Amino acid sequence: MHIKINHSVLSDALKKVEKVVNAKHNIPILQGIYMEATNEELIFIGSDSNESFRFHVPVDGENVEVYEPGKTVLPKQVTETVKRFKKDITLKLDGFTLLLQSGRSRFNLNTFAPEEFPKLPDFAIEESTLFLKGTDLSNLIKKTGFAAADSEIRPILTGVCLDLSGDCMQMVCTDSHRLGKVQVRNTSDRDLKFVIPAKSLDKLNKTFDLQEDVHIYCESENQLIFRSGSLVFYCRLLEGTYPDTSRLIPQDFKAEMKINRKVFLDEIEIIRGIANNADNGQGGVIKLHVNGAATISSYTAQTGKGESVVDYESLEGEDNFTISFSGKYIVDALKAIDDEFISFKFNGEMRPFLLTPCESEYEELQLVLPVRTQ
Amino acid sequence: MHIKINHSVLSDALKKVEKVVNAKHNIPILQGIYMEATNEELIFIGSDSNESFRFHVPVDGENVEVYEPGKTVLPKQVTETVKRFKKDITLKLDGFTLLLQSGRSRFNLNTFAPEEFPKLPDFAIEESTLFLKGTDLSNLIKKTGFAAADSEIRPILTGVCLDLSGDCMQMVCTDSHRLGKVQVRNTSDRDLKFVIPAKSLDKLNKTFDLQEDVHIYCESENQLIFRSGSLVFYCRLLEGTYPDTSRLIPQDFKAEMKINRKVFLDEIEIIRGIANNADNGQGGVIKLHVNGAATISSYTAQTGKGESVVDYESLEGEDNFTISFSGKYIVDALKAIDDEFISFKFNGEMRPFLLTPCESEYEELQLVLPVRTQ
Repeated sequence: MHIKINHSVLSDALKKVEKVVNAKHNIPILQGIYMEATNEELIFIGSDSNESFRFHVPVDGENVEVYEPGKTVLPKQVTETVKRFKKDITLKLDGFTLLLQSGRSRFNLNTFAPEEFPKLPDFAIEESTLFLKGTDLSNLIKKTGFAAADSEIRPILTGVCLDLSGDCMQMVCTDSHRLGKVQVRNTSDRDLKFVIPAKSLDKLNKTFDLQEDVHIYCESENQLIFRSGSLVFYCRLLEGTYPDTSRLIPQDFKAEMKINRKVFLDEIEIIRGIANNADNGQGGVIKLHVNGAATISSYTAQTGKGESVVDYESLEGEDNFTISFSGKYIVDALKAIDDEFISFKFNGEMRPFLLTPCESEYEELQLVLPVRTQ
Repeated sequence: MHIKINHSVLSDALKKVEKVVNAKHNIPILQGIYMEATNEELIFIGSDSNESFRFHVPVDGENVEVYEPGKTVLPKQVTETVKRFKKDITLKLDGFTLLLQSGRSRFNLNTFAPEEFPKLPDFAIEESTLFLKGTDLSNLIKKTGFAAADSEIRPILTGVCLDLSGDCMQMVCTDSHRLGKVQVRNTSDRDLKFVIPAKSLDKLNKTFDLQEDVHIYCESENQLIFRSGSLVFYCRLLEGTYPDTSRLIPQDFKAEMKINRKVFLDEIEIIRGIANNADNGQGGVIKLHVNGAATISSYTAQTGKGESVVDYESLEGEDNFTISFSGKYIVDALKAIDDEFISFKFNGEMRPFLLTPCESEYEELQLVLPVRTQ
């Protein structure tokens, strides 16, 4: 391999794929970044065996010149070094030694044998199973992923369930205390269901370009491939059956309160601050009492009590009720909604309640289970 | 106590003193913030018993009104809550309960008994032992504090030695592998020497306003008081004798190389990136070979080798020498200097070398011990 490449093109390519590379991976070759030069393109791959990024850079004779095709696996430290270069970079492979030169800096780097780097599955780039706008995928992730369980007690709950059925594509996520759900139009002609690790979706969300469409390829049962332009993300799926969440969501309500989302959120955060040192992992318990206005309050024996009043826009149904819930869960749910007003749908003080936007381009809801208080 | 105060004035005052407050301090009252209202001023104190901040706010009848003087110790969570308020705040003490109100938010907070809050020593505000410009103090700290030892193996080396003697005020700091030293004019008429914890200086540097003069009060042997405007910092000194560093610093040199600081630093950081995974706590070993130009190189068996060439401006004395040193130490030292050019003063490959700015408003130097290589 012998190539010349613009320093920021190389730096950008390495940064795109290194997000999944673990410098302490117990398979040494996965500590490196795979790089292949053909006469048409450069291919970069970073992998931790469960997740992989692949990025393509075209050979344009200007930013990238290939004198001799070839492949190698670079040590991860190259990324840090290349980032600091200010001039074009020449890379030349001599056996297992990579000669890297830029300006008056020269490196002889030990590389790994590229044949030993795990192969990524092939897929037909034109034949995606479905696609959606980058901004839509990002919003779907934002409105569901946070509700995934942190702990591995029930591994399936660390994932987000993507369900394609008829006209409807649904993403749903629950840690069994709260649930986020969004539906958009299904662009696939197949009925499919997978559970994607929430952490993988988060990584994807931080790396993909929101301006580009995202194509999703479903070639095998245990892996999903996402593509945005020249960047491809391979993600291993979670095994197991996702719980049926449809029966959890109430359809009728005793009361529906329309309230300004931002004002409600701000006041909850003020009241929650006081309860924060008595943290039970739920970020303090908040009590909501509705009777002419929405009164939010919190009490901890150690700090004292706080109370704040927010006027609602409208209220239908029961006009005097009380419910207690986790401060963290309601704050997360309110932040996942974008609309100016939300509808707070109450169904009894020991029943889950819903938060939905009053207007949204998505069919979406947030469900939170109440906290039992005396 | 009964007062009304502008929300951002209160928030600002609490933020100024809370930097030393530890919400998990084993003396419960030190988890809180002391607040006293007189007819002339409000006083806020945060303390962890070794370090304390005190801040004064004048009663101006506009931002601050005092209806009834008094004192209390607020729980620390108040800071977080007050930060979010957007309206004037009323505080009223009823026994040990503080009634706090802003807009439509009301809190009943448990407070501590203010009599039990540790007293801070008095000092005559007009009679400071010495003073210096805020920017000068900040520069003095920046050029020395980083060289303090992290570990408590020799506790005295976690401090910075401030030495007032005759016309000269000197700050010096060493962890026994490197040393930073700065001298300015002594504004005190006394000869004094103290060792201030480097971490305390760092806190002070982040909190004090650089635009104001800093007055230093030396009232007792084990404490130093810093004042910048209305903000006072009380800091316990380290006990013990600081090592005599004057004999460590060579006066004659075999070679003096003048070199562009930023270029030298950038190239060292490039080369150092490659050695970083073989981290021995010194951030990789860098070798400097001077022979017509300055060649920086690094080698690790795992990653390979890197080499970069920087032209020097001028060289006096020996024109062919080699020395190895810690990448971290030289980067820290080069960053502590502000000038465009530095002088690299070499005295033999196993002898400490100096870095000094070619022009500076301070008398300053950085000393680094070399690393023994085969």
